[in-house]
Amino acid sequence: MDKVRLGVVGYGNMGTSHCKNVGTGKVPNMELTAICDCSEARRDVAKENHGDVAIFDNATDLFKSGLCDVVIIATPHYDHPRLVEEAFSYGLNVITEKPAGVYTKQVLEMNEAAKNSGKLFGIMYNQRTNPVYQKVRELVQSGALGHIKRISWVITDWYRPQAYHDSSAWRSSWEKEGGGTLINQNPHQLDLWQWMFGMPDKITAFVSFGKYYDIEVEDDVTAYFEYENGTTGTYITSTGEAPGENRLEIACDMGKLIVEKSNVTFYRNVVSEREFNKENKTLFGKPECWKCDIPIKGTSEEHVGIFKNVTNALINGTELLAPGYEGINGLTISNAIHYSAWTGKTVDVKNFPHNEFYDILQEKIANSTMVKKVGETTNADTEGSY
Amino acid sequence: MDKVRLGVVGYGNMGTSHCKNVGTGKVPNMELTAICDCSEARRDVAKENHGDVAIFDNATDLFKSGLCDVVIIATPHYDHPRLVEEAFSYGLNVITEKPAGVYTKQVLEMNEAAKNSGKLFGIMYNQRTNPVYQKVRELVQSGALGHIKRISWVITDWYRPQAYHDSSAWRSSWEKEGGGTLINQNPHQLDLWQWMFGMPDKITAFVSFGKYYDIEVEDDVTAYFEYENGTTGTYITSTGEAPGENRLEIACDMGKLIVEKSNVTFYRNVVSEREFNKENKTLFGKPECWKCDIPIKGTSEEHVGIFKNVTNALINGTELLAPGYEGINGLTISNAIHYSAWTGKTVDVKNFPHNEFYDILQEKIANSTMVKKVGETTNADTEGSY
Repeated sequence: MDKVRLGVVGYGNMGTSHCKNVGTGKVPNMELTAICDCSEARRDVAKENHGDVAIFDNATDLFKSGLCDVVIIATPHYDHPRLVEEAFSYGLNVITEKPAGVYTKQVLEMNEAAKNSGKLFGIMYNQRTNPVYQKVRELVQSGALGHIKRISWVITDWYRPQAYHDSSAWRSSWEKEGGGTLINQNPHQLDLWQWMFGMPDKITAFVSFGKYYDIEVEDDVTAYFEYENGTTGTYITSTGEAPGENRLEIACDMGKLIVEKSNVTFYRNVVSEREFNKENKTLFGKPECWKCDIPIKGTSEEHVGIFKNVTNALINGTELLAPGYEGINGLTISNAIHYSAWTGKTVDVKNFPHNEFYDILQEKIANSTMVKKVGETTNADTEGSY
Repeated sequence: MDKVRLGVVGYGNMGTSHCKNVGTGKVPNMELTAICDCSEARRDVAKENHGDVAIFDNATDLFKSGLCDVVIIATPHYDHPRLVEEAFSYGLNVITEKPAGVYTKQVLEMNEAAKNSGKLFGIMYNQRTNPVYQKVRELVQSGALGHIKRISWVITDWYRPQAYHDSSAWRSSWEKEGGGTLINQNPHQLDLWQWMFGMPDKITAFVSFGKYYDIEVEDDVTAYFEYENGTTGTYITSTGEAPGENRLEIACDMGKLIVEKSNVTFYRNVVSEREFNKENKTLFGKPECWKCDIPIKGTSEEHVGIFKNVTNALINGTELLAPGYEGINGLTISNAIHYSAWTGKTVDVKNFPHNEFYDILQEKIANSTMVKKVGETTNADTEGSY
């Protein structure tokens, strides 16, 4: 393969953005060859924007067309696993949009299908292309921080007004979206968390549903994470805070790492705190600490970066930055936060109760009394919103 | 009264500091007239430093002496309520060091005694003199922030190495100190929290005991606070982090207030987020927000400020900045955090189970197996440590 042909399934907010990126040649050696959407109105827009590309009204015809080497599934969340599995059944390589799915049970099945297909399986975790998080991951994994004591991430700069929730019939409902900010905006950070720090062992969460908006799903979350090695964590997110914040603190033996926007600052102890503590004889003693500005090289290529990486993997066999199989991890954290909030219990993440979660979600759907104010899907420019 | 005569009960770390401040004339119209300590070694040091002051080997003799108008109780925590009550019984005005006591049950009794005495009752909440927190309180109470959505305080710059815990026989044990960092360093912030934001309604907490040090009490705390009006909060503290941090974030309708060291920054929405949300029709709309540096006037007079305030109250009848009665509030939060961690339950703060807390504390004392490595009390310069 020397040129990768991309099919885009779902021409909504994200699908439109993907078609624009690939259609305008931003991804070398990848070309846009097919688009499908079940809405006639959306297909008309697609035709206008991409006259030379085959347009389908259903995914199966796109999969069968022979026009694509790889497809990206950019439909509402619930359909990701089903469509990924179907694409594999036609021998295609697949990228799924995040989240991998709405509940772990369906994603475990999808991963099994991916494994059996032997095809490339990627996930649109575009924030993994951000050199800031790549650097943090490197610092953690290289041991430069030493043992991590506490991780606190406040990620509340996902402000979404009521107009956003009202913009599509499927948004912010248990039945159609399967959750709120955990399943929509936060899959990025939940993935980055596990990518940088590994999976927590226990999760206890406090969640508000429709506190800020006329929605039935969550819009405010505080979760407490515990690791078997003693590391603790807090994860705070909300779509109801403006201006909001994105601040990640890592307290560790070697000091403190603060990540704010593209600034990474390492308050680095000259000796590890644990070593200092062993030798120190002074009541108010404290290790000497230097403020170090960590340089960040490169830029965040976001979605284009993921497409480039997939293209390179298909042509040259290089490694995927965001393997689709790893989608289960962030989703498990997300599901565990919901499950803890619903049951008032601390969740044992390694033994996550996949079936019980699924059952409660079905109850939420069955008992829903929410009537969405809109019936028609609208689309918006998503630039800068992910 | 035109001159206030102060007696200091307990010539340990804090008592020594108080004697130094008042003995060197830092508090106009207050003079140091009496000191007591049960340790001969400490009395010898007191004599050397304050040759003209009466020195007693027990509190009762000091109370009876007629040499004092007001006494400050600066003994280990457990003894505060008993000695406060005894001082009132001799008709004295009283300031207690923080915490008001170790368990709410004893502090409720102390408050009753204070009320019956009709005398002045203060508490050494010296951080209330900090113009930074006075400003935050003013901004909250004036309504300038609007409804508060979330408060997150990370106060981990209380680093205390093992040498600190080993420095006194009474430190960091259930029996002698009654707790760890919640009862020793954190009474300040727990008081400031309730002073600025009011008492939380529910508390759920996750606490590690002796995670970083060879102690039986807590050295790492993450607590989740809930208010009936929907405000949420996280309170994170530890003595095991170096360099640690002191950062207070307040997300509110009018934006976001960040307090770090002496910097107060208000990211102020031009219109309230709630108002904006009602009118806005744009999917990714967000209120315009201005970064405002809030000027902080004056300096933090700390302990000297509290002594000045008490002197002024006694001479001129002015209001107390830190009434002793309010010591119950921060202590209730502290006890609730312990109680939640011990029982794994969420605590209803308004109906705090005073007796059940006391019973569990007694069990902790009875079941303690800790043997302190030191038997002799040492003293250290505490400057900059509170």
